[in-house]
Order: sequence, then C-alpha cells, then structure tokens
Amino acid sequence: MKEVKVGLIGFGTVGQGVVKLLRQNQKDIEARLGGRIALAGVADKDWRRPRQVALDKKFRRADGYQLIADPEVKIIIELVGNFPGVKEMIIDALRAGKMVVTANKALLAKYGDEIFAVAKKSGADIYFGASVAGGIPILRVLREGLAANRIQAIYGIVNGTCNYILTRMQEADLEYAEALKEAQARGYAEANPEADVEGIDASHKLAILLRLGFGMSVPIEKIFRKGISRLSHLDLQAASELGYRIKLLAVARESEGRLEARVHPTLIPESSMLANVRGVYNAVYVRGNFVGPTLFYGQGAGMEATASAVMSDVMELARNILQGRRAGRLRPEGYAALNPHGLRLEPMDDLVGPYYLRAWVKDQPGVLAKIAGILGKHMISINSVIQREVRDGKSVPIIIITHQALEANIQKAVREINRLKVVLNPVQLIRIATELE
Amino acid sequence: MKEVKVGLIGFGTVGQGVVKLLRQNQKDIEARLGGRIALAGVADKDWRRPRQVALDKKFRRADGYQLIADPEVKIIIELVGNFPGVKEMIIDALRAGKMVVTANKALLAKYGDEIFAVAKKSGADIYFGASVAGGIPILRVLREGLAANRIQAIYGIVNGTCNYILTRMQEADLEYAEALKEAQARGYAEANPEADVEGIDASHKLAILLRLGFGMSVPIEKIFRKGISRLSHLDLQAASELGYRIKLLAVARESEGRLEARVHPTLIPESSMLANVRGVYNAVYVRGNFVGPTLFYGQGAGMEATASAVMSDVMELARNILQGRRAGRLRPEGYAALNPHGLRLEPMDDLVGPYYLRAWVKDQPGVLAKIAGILGKHMISINSVIQREVRDGKSVPIIIITHQALEANIQKAVREINRLKVVLNPVQLIRIATELE
Repeated sequence: MKEVKVGLIGFGTVGQGVVKLLRQNQKDIEARLGGRIALAGVADKDWRRPRQVALDKKFRRADGYQLIADPEVKIIIELVGNFPGVKEMIIDALRAGKMVVTANKALLAKYGDEIFAVAKKSGADIYFGASVAGGIPILRVLREGLAANRIQAIYGIVNGTCNYILTRMQEADLEYAEALKEAQARGYAEANPEADVEGIDASHKLAILLRLGFGMSVPIEKIFRKGISRLSHLDLQAASELGYRIKLLAVARESEGRLEARVHPTLIPESSMLANVRGVYNAVYVRGNFVGPTLFYGQGAGMEATASAVMSDVMELARNILQGRRAGRLRPEGYAALNPHGLRLEPMDDLVGPYYLRAWVKDQPGVLAKIAGILGKHMISINSVIQREVRDGKSVPIIIITHQALEANIQKAVREINRLKVVLNPVQLIRIATELE
Repeated sequence: MKEVKVGLIGFGTVGQGVVKLLRQNQKDIEARLGGRIALAGVADKDWRRPRQVALDKKFRRADGYQLIADPEVKIIIELVGNFPGVKEMIIDALRAGKMVVTANKALLAKYGDEIFAVAKKSGADIYFGASVAGGIPILRVLREGLAANRIQAIYGIVNGTCNYILTRMQEADLEYAEALKEAQARGYAEANPEADVEGIDASHKLAILLRLGFGMSVPIEKIFRKGISRLSHLDLQAASELGYRIKLLAVARESEGRLEARVHPTLIPESSMLANVRGVYNAVYVRGNFVGPTLFYGQGAGMEATASAVMSDVMELARNILQGRRAGRLRPEGYAALNPHGLRLEPMDDLVGPYYLRAWVKDQPGVLAKIAGILGKHMISINSVIQREVRDGKSVPIIIITHQALEANIQKAVREINRLKVVLNPVQLIRIATELE
C-alpha cells in the first residue's frame, strides 16, 4: 500500500489528538483512502511537559524545520498556535513545496492574503478546515457542498466559550461573572478570557468564513465586534420572556451588493435551530440562493473533534499526492477569483433591523415617556415594552423592542438616553436577527 | 476560460432547477471553479409538457443517447427518475467514459454494487450527492469532512413528506389521514404516498448512507422498515407529554462489530436538535469516534435545493476534468475497500432499547395488571405509564414506556397482549432513541 509521510509541528492538545487519531483510526483511513498516512515525526520545543498521548522518542524533533527539510515529508501539519515565527514557518514550508494543514485562525484572518499568495506561487495547497467551528466541516461545505450557490447569509455560533457562558446564564440563572468562572473551572475559558468573550476569536473565524462564503478578503479591523461581557442575566431572562435566546453570532449577510460583517450578541427566535445550540457546541447557519437555509452543528473545539478536522484535510491532500497531483484547481480558499460580485462592505451605521434596548432607570413617573420621546425623535418606533417590578422600589429596568430601525439612529438615540439623569447605567443595546428559521 | 460540457437527461422539476442554476449562478460557478460549465443539451421524451423554465429549441434532444454519444460532452446529469432503461443508460454512459451525476436513490440502493463496479472498471466517476437529503451535502460530509472518523451512528430525517405529516399531526392536532391530505394538497406527498409514508424512500437513502458511512453494501430488503401510516394523533400527543417528539428516522448504528439498519417512527427527546426539525426539512445526525455528535440540516427536496446538490457534484467532476484527471482516488462511494471492520448486520430481534407501547383497552379493572404481567413474564420492566380518561367510558388508551428491553421479547409480549380480549386494537409499538443530544 502506498503511503504519504506527514510531519506534525506542535504537540499540544490538538497535536496529541492527531497522533491518537492516526493510531486509532488507521484502518478506517486506509479503507477510505486506499493508501496509508505515516507519521514521519513530531516537532515541539518542550518535550518535558507531561502529555496525555505517549510518543516514542524516535518520532520527537526539537525544531519544525527538521521536518520541513525532510524530502520524505509531503504534508506539514502546523498546530503550534499563534506564536512569533509561525507565519514564517508556514511560508517556508509552502516555499519548500510542502502541503500545509493548519488550525491557526488568527494567522489566516490576519495574513491570509499573503499566505495564500505564497501557496499559489509555489504550487502547494494550504488547508485550514479546523480553523473554524472545530469538527464541523463548514469550510469544506462552503467550498464544495454548497459551491454552486451564491451565498446570501451566514450566522455562526463559532465560539464555544461564549455559548457555554450564555447557556449557563440562561439555564442556571447565573450572572456573567459566575458563568465565566464556571467556564474557567471546566477548562472552557482561559484565565484571560478576552479573546473569547470580547468576540475577537469569533471575528477571526468570520474573516475566514467571508473568504470561503463570499470570496471576500476583509481585514479583521473592519469587522464590527462586540462581546458578551456586558450582558446581564436580566437580559437573557427578558429575551426569554419575549421568545428569544441570546447568542454571540458571527454574521455575514449580503444584500444589494453590500456585505455586512459583524460579531455581537444577538437575540434570535427561540424556535430557530441556532437557538437550540447549547453549551460548548458550535453551529453555522448558511443560506444559499438555491439550497435555501442550512445548518451545520457539532463540537467547535477539543482534542478529538479538532483532530477530526485536521485529518480530514490531511486525507484530501494525501489523496491528491497519491494521484501524483500538485495543488487542486479549486483552491482551498474557495475562490479562483476573489469578490466576483464586486461587493462592498456595509458601514455598521447603515445596518437596519429591530433592536433590544434595556435601561436601568429611576422608578418615577414620566421616564418611559422621555425615553420613548427620544426614540420617536430618531424615527425609531417601539414594538413592545417590558417594565419590571424590582424590590428596592428605587430603580427599575425598562426593556424595549423596536421595529426596524437604522443603526445610526439607534446609536444617536442611545447616546441621548444615556445623558438623561433618570437613566442610571448606560443602555444595553442588543441587535435582533429575525430571519433565522 | 476553459469549459466543460455537460449533457442533462430529464427535464422535470430538478432538471429545470439545474438549468436555472446554471444560468443564474454562472458567475459564482466560474469564480469558484476557474472554469466554465456549459450546457451541451437537454434530453427528454416529452417536450410538449409545459415547463417553468424556458429552454431554447437548439438545446432540446429527444433521446439521452444523443448526449452520451457526443464526444464533447464530458459529464452526463441523469435526472429521469426510477424508470425502465435508466440503469442501462447510466451504465452505457459510464462505459462511454462519461462522468455521471444522478439523484436516483432507488437505483443506487438496488444496483449500487453493479453500477459502481462498472464505473471503477471504466475509470469514470458517478456522483450522487442529491440522492440523500436533497440540498444537505451529507454524502460529501461522510466521504470527506468526517473521513478520518470511524462512524458510530447515523440518525436521519431523510423523508420530508413524513416529517411534514408528523409535524402537522403534532402541531395542528391532526389525525394521520388529515395531515396526509394536506401534504398532498401542498404537493409534498404524491397521490399514491406509499413510497414515502411506508418508509421505502427512507430505506433507499439509508442504504446509501450505510455505504458512505460504514463502507457497507446492504440489500434494501435486509433493512428493517416500518412507516408512519399507523400512527395516531394520540401517540404524538402522548409522546409530547412524556417529553418526546415522534420522527421517522433512518437509523444506522454500530456496536461491537454489529450494524443496526432500520427505518421506523422513533420517539426522540424533545430537547434534541433532531426533534426541532420541522415541516419538510431534513436533517442527519452523525456521530463519529473523534468528531463526536454532529448534525446537518436543510431542505431535503425541491427544484432549487436538489439542483444545488446536483451542481455541486458537477463542479467537482468539472474540476477533475479541468485538471486532466480521470476518476478520483477516493471514490465517490466513499471507500476504496468495503466493510473494513468486517461488520455484520444485526438481526432486528437483537435490538435493545426502551419502547413506547400504546393499547386501547376496555375500561375495566385489572387490565393494566394483565398487560404488566405479560411484560414482566418477558423480562420487560416498566418505566412509566399514562392511562387517560376518555369520554365514552368504555375504552381507554394505556401508554407504557419500558426500560431497556430486547426487541424479540417486546414482539412476543405484544403478540400476547394483542390476544387479550380486553385489548381492542393491536398494540402500537414505537422504538425510543435516547442517545441523541
């Protein structure tokens, strides 16, 4: 049986998962591929750290460049993470004619154009299926399964940490800080949770989805981004009463030649498939102009699910190599020609939709009238209002759902409301997605 | 720009969708493929029938063999349906070295081995992504996205007609006959609905899923099959009270070297993702040994969604052709070697799980004791019981949920219960799937 040699750089959680999978599913891989995938070696800086997966000394390398220099190695799996020198290592591997598989979303979101250009020039492919939504083969779905569609919208729950926190806030009546602490205790959130809870990780993934779904290379700083750290349990409770769930969504939506690209907490109808995605699970809703609405669900992270995605890419490359083929005609980044429809990014101010507003106000007459007056002045009409009883009798939350309104107007109105003396805290503003089924 | 010529055989609903897609999404296809897909001609026996999609006379052919004989045509799209002569036509196309795309699930379920052998011998590929779950790229997911996994279980809602009927029975409190009539009026069910409502269509799709997921070629007559036509509104209502939904599922499940293959109505937890699949939508739950649970959701039928699946296959073939490549190494049927784990089909009698039993009995003392006695005799223990009040005071339904029990024992017990004089109708038996999240 013919074999393809792979070199693995980085023996952390996912790297160990890859080695485990290669051992445990060898027979399945061979039966599907009609060939063998053989591990040439694993490079890591630190071999003293204890590991879950054992690795014989003969496979251990101190430096990834030992594997890149090995002429027997055809595929490099990069699982180091976002560290200095990794971008250069990937580029050097591609220049050396190696096929590359990586899960490095931050790197691709930032330097995708540069890295893909090197790959194209050197006739090598770089695959990155594990970079978005872990085990869910969403990039492959966009690139191939839905390839005949013009993609109209993508709504993704692509950060398991945030989804876990929001699920616990909702279901266990926790405040944000408590749910975060729980997520940290369970290993779902890092000691410094900023990249997850502020939507940075989700914005990196959205940048990759924009490329695969719309053929758009969008700088991450142009993606609107708001995290979940300012949400209160009260918001999840109120949303629930109104028939919604709150999810951190990565949204890409095309309409009339303009592309929305935004990451923020979103109210979605509780009957929608996305609303039922609980805990650390991820899911991506995609609407294509022929396929209609679709949804892809699974584990977005973890040793084994991510290894599944990495190895699916390795198998595709191995198949090409076994056929004596260099890079594929349909490039892994999904488009032979970028931005075929000449889309332009929509400024956030131009967004139109319904909004959820929550204000803590002094419990005195006329407050609602003042707020409603400001909204009316900015052409924002009110769909429904909840005003709650609170024990202390001094302050109350007012929750307002608006009809369709313009983001620029909402922002102006919110600034004005925040200046009212009777408003005790800045207004909580959450966008509402209504088109999800 | 290089182009690949395709010939379409069959200008029915899906055929028209393909022509529509080729026109409407030409730019998207070219941007992704870096090449053009050109329609050489469309064959159909009947050109007088009115159509939704217009087609210039110069494209019309009376006979598919005109396209097969055309040396310019590289890909044949077969969308005739399950008619005499279609199998031979597909085989002739493959022998002529044409790549073939088909949505013909019945044909592949019955003659897959023969057709795939011809393809392999002639070095051509036959793709059939549209044959299962319409627009959802589930076959591609099994073949590639989850290729590195040993698949452990597949639970599919793969028949939109049944799912529509069950959704309406549940949500609009309809009886089966009423919901069927509604489905027929909306064009979701045929005048003779047997193939859908008796699970025949779902069993064909399961046969294809077994091949892609497990590398198993299973004759359709070996797949256990039970339809939805005997379900009563009462069952859906009772299931709901107990926290379940009823879905027609195509189930494939491996455990200890044995493979379950069965199609039947199933109680599933209402909190599961599959339970929330409503109306004509399809969804397939797949559990792989590394990726864990995943779910893929979308439209299972319809002109446009099915055309999306057909054209995704055409694009993959066109990519290969543009690269000067013949058939792929990873064959479209997913396995280079069948049955790598030497699985054996599990006899239905050996199935173990909880069951839902519903009996209509005379409203008199001691009936439940009799039934419980029979269950106990056959080693079946009871988890919960609902006994309902009914107006007439003469007959009542008794609903029993069992603990884990052996199918053979359940069948024996049910036969014995049916012989009781106090039991007015044959017991309704529905299997329960508990492992779905």
